[in-house]
Amino acid sequence: MSARSRNLTHTHPSEVSLQDAFDALGDPVRRTIVRELAGAPDWTRACGTFDLPVSKATRSHHFAVLRAAGLVEQRDEGTRRLNRLRRPEFDQRFPGLLDVVLAEPATDSG
Amino acid sequence: MSARSRNLTHTHPSEVSLQDAFDALGDPVRRTIVRELAGAPDWTRACGTFDLPVSKATRSHHFAVLRAAGLVEQRDEGTRRLNRLRRPEFDQRFPGLLDVVLAEPATDSG
Repeated sequence: MSARSRNLTHTHPSEVSLQDAFDALGDPVRRTIVRELAGAPDWTRACGTFDLPVSKATRSHHFAVLRAAGLVEQRDEGTRRLNRLRRPEFDQRFPGLLDVVLAEPATDSG
Repeated sequence: MSARSRNLTHTHPSEVSLQDAFDALGDPVRRTIVRELAGAPDWTRACGTFDLPVSKATRSHHFAVLRAAGLVEQRDEGTRRLNRLRRPEFDQRFPGLLDVVLAEPATDSG
């Protein structure tokens, strides 16, 4: 069993409801994570590299919500937890929704 | 002073943040209202014609949130409060966001 399957629960976007998508993207910290991931190559950003105004536990919660909403895929490499924005598959499920989030100026997210 | 300006506070979509838009559209009852309005000509649906599983006070609150998020325009005609979905101007502010909501099957909204 890989580290990914042992530690982390993922949901494929095809199984995500619009309610879950709105709940995940309704939080400004999670939109910041999504925007920063969109600006980096897949699997290059570790969770600890995000400058977020929240505790470590809250940060972990935000990433768990993003996984459950089909927005983020994670895998562990050594001591780092790397991230990928599931953009193609999320775009297929909700065409245009990520584009709206990525068009938001960073300063609007609170 | 018209009935519109006396009784009802509206916000133009150009002044709405993405946070306010997500907050408004994050509720399944409000998405139902938006979808039903999209399926009817402007100014033909009165508030009382929506079959919603909520109290009259909650219904009024939902419409107030939709007005404040630039999604709905209202005006009183006699005893009826008529509605218009501000689709062109909301689409201009957040291209694609309403399309995502309108693509949601009615049964998904709870």
